[in-house]
Amino acid sequence: MRRSLSILGIVALAAGVLSPAYADDKDVIDYRQHIMNTLSEQAAALGQILSTIVPPDNAAAHVEALSLTASTALKAFEPKVLGGESKPEVWQNWADFSKRMNEFAQKLAEASKEVKAGHTEEVLLNVTDALTCKGCHDLYRDEKKKK
Amino acid sequence: MRRSLSILGIVALAAGVLSPAYADDKDVIDYRQHIMNTLSEQAAALGQILSTIVPPDNAAAHVEALSLTASTALKAFEPKVLGGESKPEVWQNWADFSKRMNEFAQKLAEASKEVKAGHTEEVLLNVTDALTCKGCHDLYRDEKKKK
Repeated sequence: MRRSLSILGIVALAAGVLSPAYADDKDVIDYRQHIMNTLSEQAAALGQILSTIVPPDNAAAHVEALSLTASTALKAFEPKVLGGESKPEVWQNWADFSKRMNEFAQKLAEASKEVKAGHTEEVLLNVTDALTCKGCHDLYRDEKKKK
Repeated sequence: MRRSLSILGIVALAAGVLSPAYADDKDVIDYRQHIMNTLSEQAAALGQILSTIVPPDNAAAHVEALSLTASTALKAFEPKVLGGESKPEVWQNWADFSKRMNEFAQKLAEASKEVKAGHTEEVLLNVTDALTCKGCHDLYRDEKKKK
């Protein structure tokens, strides 16, 4: 039954019948956490490669996955729903927050473009410059609220 | 000092001086968990979109991120290091495990190709067929060992 309902939902969505919206605040928080957790996991995997403790076979894919995910992140913060690890300053200083997030996505998009052009080794030399996570987390993330 | 050493490592890696290898078993387990956690977070985000509780703006990016990450997963299991949530059967039945993982990656690669061709809505109708997570987890993952 669950499956039928789900398929119905998807069909309705594809047909433009439903106008999907965030169902409630928990969904909004869950969604942005899925995205930020993805960034964290992929940055950690890439970090292991940069530290030469893991072979670099997947390095290009990690850079591309980071770039794709960074491009999705700002959208997930657009609903002004306080909670999770986000400080209220995310929305109080939205211009700064969104500028930082866009720059982060832009730097990773450039890195991803270079990787696709076959310049993975050069990208690995500089990619930590693109991973500006800490500067933003210091201002906008409350790690004490981590689940 | 840490930073200097790290840069030295990266330069050496880029120059082909270092032959990086997994430093120890914990690194191997951590690395594959970063990849499997990425799949879990991205599948959950896509699931929220399929359930129409989150707007579908990022749907294409999630499919592409899943495809990229699936393409990196098998490599992370190649070192035969028991532990984490992996059952010993991963390596006892390597032919079946790797076949399933390759099929998973292949299905998502096809979905990603369709998304890039602009057919995201059609992909969303069928993408759950590609997310064969449960069949593999039932055989090869011990969730009780989850951290």
